[in-house]
Amino acid sequence: MAWLTTSYLIDSEPERIEARAEALAIEQSVECPLEAVRDARIRDEIVARVAAIEPAGENRYRVDVKIAAETVGGDVAQLINMIFGNCSLWENVQFTGLELPAALLARFPGPRHGIAGIRALLGAARRPLTAVAMKPQGMRVAELAAMCRTFALAGIDVIKDDHGIANQAYSPFAERVRACQSAVAEAAAATGKRSFYAPHLIGTPRALRERARIARDEGVRVVLVAPMVVGLPAFFDLVEEFPEFVYLGHPSFGGAARIAPPLLFGRLYRLFGVDAPIFVNYGGRFAYPQPECGAIAAEARAPWGDLRPALPVPAGGMRLDRVEELLDFYGPDTMLLIGGNLLLAEGEALLERAREFAGKVAVTGASVGA
Amino acid sequence: MAWLTTSYLIDSEPERIEARAEALAIEQSVECPLEAVRDARIRDEIVARVAAIEPAGENRYRVDVKIAAETVGGDVAQLINMIFGNCSLWENVQFTGLELPAALLARFPGPRHGIAGIRALLGAARRPLTAVAMKPQGMRVAELAAMCRTFALAGIDVIKDDHGIANQAYSPFAERVRACQSAVAEAAAATGKRSFYAPHLIGTPRALRERARIARDEGVRVVLVAPMVVGLPAFFDLVEEFPEFVYLGHPSFGGAARIAPPLLFGRLYRLFGVDAPIFVNYGGRFAYPQPECGAIAAEARAPWGDLRPALPVPAGGMRLDRVEELLDFYGPDTMLLIGGNLLLAEGEALLERAREFAGKVAVTGASVGA
Repeated sequence: MAWLTTSYLIDSEPERIEARAEALAIEQSVECPLEAVRDARIRDEIVARVAAIEPAGENRYRVDVKIAAETVGGDVAQLINMIFGNCSLWENVQFTGLELPAALLARFPGPRHGIAGIRALLGAARRPLTAVAMKPQGMRVAELAAMCRTFALAGIDVIKDDHGIANQAYSPFAERVRACQSAVAEAAAATGKRSFYAPHLIGTPRALRERARIARDEGVRVVLVAPMVVGLPAFFDLVEEFPEFVYLGHPSFGGAARIAPPLLFGRLYRLFGVDAPIFVNYGGRFAYPQPECGAIAAEARAPWGDLRPALPVPAGGMRLDRVEELLDFYGPDTMLLIGGNLLLAEGEALLERAREFAGKVAVTGASVGA
Repeated sequence: MAWLTTSYLIDSEPERIEARAEALAIEQSVECPLEAVRDARIRDEIVARVAAIEPAGENRYRVDVKIAAETVGGDVAQLINMIFGNCSLWENVQFTGLELPAALLARFPGPRHGIAGIRALLGAARRPLTAVAMKPQGMRVAELAAMCRTFALAGIDVIKDDHGIANQAYSPFAERVRACQSAVAEAAAATGKRSFYAPHLIGTPRALRERARIARDEGVRVVLVAPMVVGLPAFFDLVEEFPEFVYLGHPSFGGAARIAPPLLFGRLYRLFGVDAPIFVNYGGRFAYPQPECGAIAAEARAPWGDLRPALPVPAGGMRLDRVEELLDFYGPDTMLLIGGNLLLAEGEALLERAREFAGKVAVTGASVGA
């Protein structure tokens, strides 16, 4: 008998928490009154059970539930269903933790590259890494390519599409990928340092696959995907079919208030194959507290079965003058992603600013990494 | 210039709501400081704009935002990204409304059968419809098939897998579908009334397609899918490839607290092709208030472009003694779904109870529908 363990934060009056925890265990397994479960095997081996109830604040409890691995049946979509299916519809329940038994965990290859693979690809053994987002969407292909060239000349490691850039009339996917790939190649020829353009893959599974093929044919090695937008199971298939890409995972549609951000972006994203989860940084335009951001980064890198560590990518409200503070907090196994703040400059000034970003990260990183 | 309109409930101090609304419009379009948007075309045609801010309670506002249809580019996954992407990560924002311009709406065929198609398939022109869920998961195929036969003999319209039943070792998909299809066929031969077995399709896009093929080959006409588990874009592809199925949409992983249930289950599910959205009923084990359930049903059936009306399927905590009350509230274009409550009986008693359910709905429905 193998069991996975899920944890939830439940807001409840003390006198009701035991009943709520029991109800959750039933909801996430047999989903019917226990009296209707007449088979002893099902009661013993299938019904989920409450493993622990711990106080976690006033009228708030951490509840651990053991769910039979057999109910997942090795299906990655069914895993989602079993760990946070119906109880996602309950009020005042947040999904906060997941532990998988070894055999089930082995069903998930996780990141195909992880921190070490990304460092090898980017040719940066120890220093922190840099990424920028090309914005605003609405720019034509030629403008995006010019911006991409500027960032590559500045020595930025990864130059990604803004996650709003899809396959719109103003910057069609195939044409954009071709132009931006040329831009980074030209810059590499001029500087001797290679930058990687990461196009945004979005669409139904069929469109995803088609665009992934186009990107592969153009020599792309890093891509951006929002796993919650395309759906975690579709993302899983994509990674399996195109393992050569490094996957940056975007948090869009993450509705993270119901799934604790460290669990969703640090743990689940990685489980499904994200190499580098992007998450919203503290002190920016999202209200994530600093310890939570630290917890996301820690989850992404923590030992977990045979899964490769994933590279944390804090983003959102990133500013040049915060590089030192952020590297001090996150450490060198980090990719700093900066977007709008750089783009307040343009032309030559943009090149300078981007260069300053790349340089600052390299210099600061050398001391942090020491 | 075509715009879609999204609505959100935002909790905010009065003095900050205007800035928050503006920030949301930027977040859901260009996602960078407006000063960095130098191109007049992008400012005029791509940047989203706040269309209205209305008080909606103490320190709560309804904010309408106009988003350029061009940014969606006809991509159904990108639609999700544009309407509730990054702002799903904000605190105290609930997504509550969506209006699409005609050309974009036409990109979505929606339910392929809808209320009229379901009634035609089930041979029930006016009366309310019945559905049951087979539980608990863990039962072997022979037990499920026996239960299925009992429900079919009782005259239940749709007999669905519990949404926890996937492709586990104890009831593998192909074997289960074959056995349950035989069970409903045998019952139909005995009673002259046809019931429909609805297997649960779950998996990554590749597994989904494979199971859909098996189901089709076995003559299945109604299936159960949880669109948020498999991902809305993957669900969209599935419906497009297998339009012959009637799709029951399960709410699992719906995390409905961040997307208003009437919008998610009534409107978005239908937009992506659900024929009959299952949602949690008031007065059951989920805390949905009655008006919200009414709003879900209303959204599912409301005129919306050329989309077929979808059939509301209230479920969860359904009891035999509530049939009249519920039909009175929901009206005849409804399928009542009962699960655990029936299963407190077994054997002959289960047959009687299920018969009572089917009979009660038919009789009560005749007066409601009159």
